[in-house]
Amino acid sequence: MSEINIGIIGFGTVGAGTVEALMENREIISNRAGTEVVIRKIADLDTESDRGITLDRELLTTNSMDVIEDPNVNVIVELIGGMEPAKEYILKAMENGKHVVTANKALLAEHGREIYQAAERCGVSLAFEASVGGGIPIVRALRCGLSANHIQTIMGILNGTSNYILTRMTREGHPYNKVVQDAVSLGLAEDPPTLDVDGTDAAHKLAILISIAFGSPVSFEEIFREGISSLTPDDIRFASEFGYSVKLLAIGRNLGDRLEARVHPAMIPRDHILANVNEAYNAIYLEGDFVGPNLYYGLGAGKRPTASAVVSDIIDLARHIRLGVNGIMPPLAHFRSTGHGITIRPMEELTSEFYFRFSALDRPGVLSRIAGILADQQISIFSVIQKGRDAGGSVPIVMLTHEALESNVRKAVSLIDQLDVAMGKTVMIRVENR
Amino acid sequence: MSEINIGIIGFGTVGAGTVEALMENREIISNRAGTEVVIRKIADLDTESDRGITLDRELLTTNSMDVIEDPNVNVIVELIGGMEPAKEYILKAMENGKHVVTANKALLAEHGREIYQAAERCGVSLAFEASVGGGIPIVRALRCGLSANHIQTIMGILNGTSNYILTRMTREGHPYNKVVQDAVSLGLAEDPPTLDVDGTDAAHKLAILISIAFGSPVSFEEIFREGISSLTPDDIRFASEFGYSVKLLAIGRNLGDRLEARVHPAMIPRDHILANVNEAYNAIYLEGDFVGPNLYYGLGAGKRPTASAVVSDIIDLARHIRLGVNGIMPPLAHFRSTGHGITIRPMEELTSEFYFRFSALDRPGVLSRIAGILADQQISIFSVIQKGRDAGGSVPIVMLTHEALESNVRKAVSLIDQLDVAMGKTVMIRVENR
Repeated sequence: MSEINIGIIGFGTVGAGTVEALMENREIISNRAGTEVVIRKIADLDTESDRGITLDRELLTTNSMDVIEDPNVNVIVELIGGMEPAKEYILKAMENGKHVVTANKALLAEHGREIYQAAERCGVSLAFEASVGGGIPIVRALRCGLSANHIQTIMGILNGTSNYILTRMTREGHPYNKVVQDAVSLGLAEDPPTLDVDGTDAAHKLAILISIAFGSPVSFEEIFREGISSLTPDDIRFASEFGYSVKLLAIGRNLGDRLEARVHPAMIPRDHILANVNEAYNAIYLEGDFVGPNLYYGLGAGKRPTASAVVSDIIDLARHIRLGVNGIMPPLAHFRSTGHGITIRPMEELTSEFYFRFSALDRPGVLSRIAGILADQQISIFSVIQKGRDAGGSVPIVMLTHEALESNVRKAVSLIDQLDVAMGKTVMIRVENR
Repeated sequence: MSEINIGIIGFGTVGAGTVEALMENREIISNRAGTEVVIRKIADLDTESDRGITLDRELLTTNSMDVIEDPNVNVIVELIGGMEPAKEYILKAMENGKHVVTANKALLAEHGREIYQAAERCGVSLAFEASVGGGIPIVRALRCGLSANHIQTIMGILNGTSNYILTRMTREGHPYNKVVQDAVSLGLAEDPPTLDVDGTDAAHKLAILISIAFGSPVSFEEIFREGISSLTPDDIRFASEFGYSVKLLAIGRNLGDRLEARVHPAMIPRDHILANVNEAYNAIYLEGDFVGPNLYYGLGAGKRPTASAVVSDIIDLARHIRLGVNGIMPPLAHFRSTGHGITIRPMEELTSEFYFRFSALDRPGVLSRIAGILADQQISIFSVIQKGRDAGGSVPIVMLTHEALESNVRKAVSLIDQLDVAMGKTVMIRVENR
């Protein structure tokens, strides 16, 4: 076979980037693929907008089925995102014997099992490097590069928008809402950036990474999610005084029989390599039982970085298709899947160190009452900062704890927030020291 | 085929780590390979030492040819390192139709062309993830993950020993010799660690990375090499005052028709992600035309990290062998090699910013004479630090330049070192601001 034909569904930002890469870097791509990669058809509801690409208009269609049913197409590239009709298109393409490349993290996170099984049943490959970390080849690192390892820890900065917001809050001391407004007006965040800042997007990506690491789809709903919108510049500054940076982390940890899987703001030591990942950059920190600590860093979104990942998948498939081989690796890179999902430990059972900022009336005995409640819940204090009172007579009491149980922390916070001296909700941030 | 048989040549640290991984993680490895991976034979001159591994003694042989000529062996894993007999073994194994996995960076850097061609001629695969960056899957990133890109820049901290030494010099302010002695006595460096600290080891790895990035072997001798042994804690401290960290960097840059390829101590801005790579860690920073900046970080050496890379290659080969496929990708992942080497631009043509520390008698007019020589060589000064004199009457004059030409800098330094007021050789460190 002297050429591989691909059909693209979705001619938005990533679709246009993919076409751009295939055209601009045609020579090096065919050299690395061992065959020409030819765009056969592109489907999008909008075939009129100018994407800045000179294309034969005959390639464009508004009907995705034209692409999926084209007998000459070997590979379908799904770039419309979301649940339906993306899922229907992918399943139909597989039934038609097409290999599939997708960037659709939400779909894989929430309906991965069905899609992975369909790929195996239909005897086609499914590649999804672009679904996590933009251009960072982290899916390949887990499927191939670290395949000798049991993965013990995954800690990721997986959402560029929230990392950008936290970076600016840290550097400029501006409150969350102002930075979000700026980011939206600069075109760096969607308006509103709900799924970016509430942890959903990062949790989608974490679900995919965990599924590959452990060889079985994970139940997305069980991943704990907490966003960054309640963080204040004060908390970031206090964290800094304790030697920490605040990041929205997606954490997966192998507990033997169960897993930790959670997304929330976390304090990490400032000398941790993840603490230096700023702006819109993503990074994934992994620990394997042989490789030890590893980090992967790059742009987690955007037209060209995401296209880099999509096209790398196309090249890998082309290398296989030209030899007529198939089934080198199942989607999750485990030949024997457990078949059932991985059990995620309930968040209440987490043990962690914690940061608290209590807002309380500046009266004698307040610290003692707070400390008493913490002690009742077996929460032991590691360090306290209490600064001068502010104009309103309330005072922030900031502390770090030793390891404590999440359920106890929640109970303590709830009791403290009910005290008559409480002047606002307690802020709690988990600390990652491991 | 229900099992893949491997033969290991070299039962030293990495060989023992590889056996350890194959035994300890047998279940996950077979699950990811799709077949059992069986150790058929292990050759080493020393078959008596205790490696802490319980093995059938029948597996051990002192004769490497027993392994290479075993008709049941599919994959030869070469872990003895060095030029000969490693090269002979690899070529013989390929002629016998065996796929080869190697960690041998020196051999690939200096004789890569012959070995890559032999693999293609014999129709076998050659995998060498462990040759660069220990457990970091950087070879795969270049062969697969970033395959859609023209690689524009490679900047690597590729030698863990020298990074460890620089980290301790930076943190503790101790001189080079003392830190090296400590590292040797702690078993963290060889005695003497010549190839680690003089840039040779990093240059070997850079040669391999460049060869994959550009699809053609590079002439190792043309890679400029300068080591870290003349660096002093003073220079590291001055660099820090200017906002820089000092690292031994391996740099490759695509200049269109030619390449930069050089290894030397360099100052990088403290907020660059590479500046935060400390201790014995390695990291490779890459820029591609689509993916943008990327970083890969991890342990660049050691028994278990290196074994992680070796076994990941074995698993990839096993995935192919079980399907009877071959030739998915040539060693450098380019199907059309240029056939001739890449041209490296002579170091004299480098333009860079520079750091200088001049040691001169503390007399009127000295700075003016130095500045005059620099001006004559079109070297323009960006910033100067001149501190109080020391006991001997000499004074360090420290400066940063704007971009200047390496050949001019060498001429200027040579002229300045011949001044009657010169009290010692000028220290020059290149600054990487791009």
